[in-house]
Amino acid sequence: MAAARQVTIREVALRDGLQSEREFVPTEKKLAVIDALSQAGIQCMETTSFVSPRAIPQLQDAAELMSRVARGNIIHEVLVPNLKGAQKAIVSNVDRVVVFISASEAHNQANVGCSIGDSLADLQTVYSLLKQHQVPAAGIIAVSFGCPYQGRVQKTDVLKIAQRFVDWGADRVMLADTTGMASPAQISEMIGYVQSHLPDVPLGLHLHNNRGVAMANLYAGYLAGITQFDTSLGGIGGCPNVPLAAGNLATEDVVFMFEEMGVATGLDLPGLIRAAQLLEKILQHPLPGRSPTGS
Amino acid sequence: MAAARQVTIREVALRDGLQSEREFVPTEKKLAVIDALSQAGIQCMETTSFVSPRAIPQLQDAAELMSRVARGNIIHEVLVPNLKGAQKAIVSNVDRVVVFISASEAHNQANVGCSIGDSLADLQTVYSLLKQHQVPAAGIIAVSFGCPYQGRVQKTDVLKIAQRFVDWGADRVMLADTTGMASPAQISEMIGYVQSHLPDVPLGLHLHNNRGVAMANLYAGYLAGITQFDTSLGGIGGCPNVPLAAGNLATEDVVFMFEEMGVATGLDLPGLIRAAQLLEKILQHPLPGRSPTGS
Repeated sequence: MAAARQVTIREVALRDGLQSEREFVPTEKKLAVIDALSQAGIQCMETTSFVSPRAIPQLQDAAELMSRVARGNIIHEVLVPNLKGAQKAIVSNVDRVVVFISASEAHNQANVGCSIGDSLADLQTVYSLLKQHQVPAAGIIAVSFGCPYQGRVQKTDVLKIAQRFVDWGADRVMLADTTGMASPAQISEMIGYVQSHLPDVPLGLHLHNNRGVAMANLYAGYLAGITQFDTSLGGIGGCPNVPLAAGNLATEDVVFMFEEMGVATGLDLPGLIRAAQLLEKILQHPLPGRSPTGS
Repeated sequence: MAAARQVTIREVALRDGLQSEREFVPTEKKLAVIDALSQAGIQCMETTSFVSPRAIPQLQDAAELMSRVARGNIIHEVLVPNLKGAQKAIVSNVDRVVVFISASEAHNQANVGCSIGDSLADLQTVYSLLKQHQVPAAGIIAVSFGCPYQGRVQKTDVLKIAQRFVDWGADRVMLADTTGMASPAQISEMIGYVQSHLPDVPLGLHLHNNRGVAMANLYAGYLAGITQFDTSLGGIGGCPNVPLAAGNLATEDVVFMFEEMGVATGLDLPGLIRAAQLLEKILQHPLPGRSPTGS
């Protein structure tokens, strides 16, 4: 298969990135970052999550953020863990909902406090509600490659969940390497396997950089035919329920790589670097992304 | 071509890594790091460089280090910029000499203060001296992909130098992305081009991570048939004559990736992480490598 000449970047700094930041970022400042990202051409974003404010205080302003954010230029996707979150997302008039589950029992217990079976039963009602309200839904499968508690994750476990999500109406499935345990070979193998069973379902990749391998994993995914990648401005991020989780791939680094290869992202690199500089100023600590400080 | 099941890691922390560190690391401590690397299975290392102590004060102890370092388990390679350096390397009884030049005129001027033509004339006498003393020699070509002063580097410019080096006796040519400007596509194209013209010459890759893309570049090189990679313990490094140069790829991250893919490196990952922890203690600042702190 010839590699794609165009890819889509889904910006996750506002949700996956910020949720690891201890200091609450005021809604006003989040809106300023979203505006800077919009100016750099970002068209798809995981803007916030309707989770318990006790679990993730950083995202306690989800409803307010969605009521104030500019509409039209960006598809605002919002992560929800359960029916209650989905109801709030619908009220907030989000563009798309992302439903998540973990591919390993131990991680699902740590992350949402129940078994995969119980989560799936809940999520079926979530998808049903979203369909009823005609809100598009995507599914994301955490720890699709390796789990910090259980080790390597089987392809069949990932496919089983992906199949359910698609049956229930997901128009896209994202595979997440939540703690950066995948290798490029495993990415190629997993993508090939899932694609062969679900050939019509768009797949995305969500990669973390705990061992510095995420960019090679992204490239392996690209070679395997993936055209949608989650990245985070400045490379911020992590998972609050995983020990020592590291950030996402930096949006600006990924865009540099694709544009250098003549693969269109539709994004403006200097604009992204300005947005990353704004974010760095807001967070008051250096960000892991390399491109802003590179020569 | 089927990808190789075995690769060689050439450890460059002691030379390329340390030369960017302001604080002089005493010989005793360098020897301790070399010992830790040896225990982790490292068999090939760029141990130091015979350059002007004024230019790189960190490596002023090259002769002393070579007189005290344990011999037998590790092939000690030493970088030299000119005839004077080569003479010192021969006296120090090094296992192999690495001769370097830049692929762009502007970078060669900045790095060694003369034109590529003048450098080549000097290096021919270096190779000749090494041959006379039966010291094996390799060549490394800096800024083989992009130059911070001149931009993208042409394949023909790289090949021309590689061809000279081989004619003069180099048994290996390493292509360096000195400031992390390459993309995976460019790596594949360059490797394919040079291999097609010099099919019998072992090529190596030396990659920097200025824009976070180096691991994808390494993976692209691996897919193109490269089996020797320069990496630096803890990801330390940079180039003193390049503005804002970033580190090399961390040895432990690269080893994690290859071993996860079932590609043998002959190295012990926990041992490398212990060595990186020792290095971090000596340098008294956090290192860019991810694996030591990853979950």
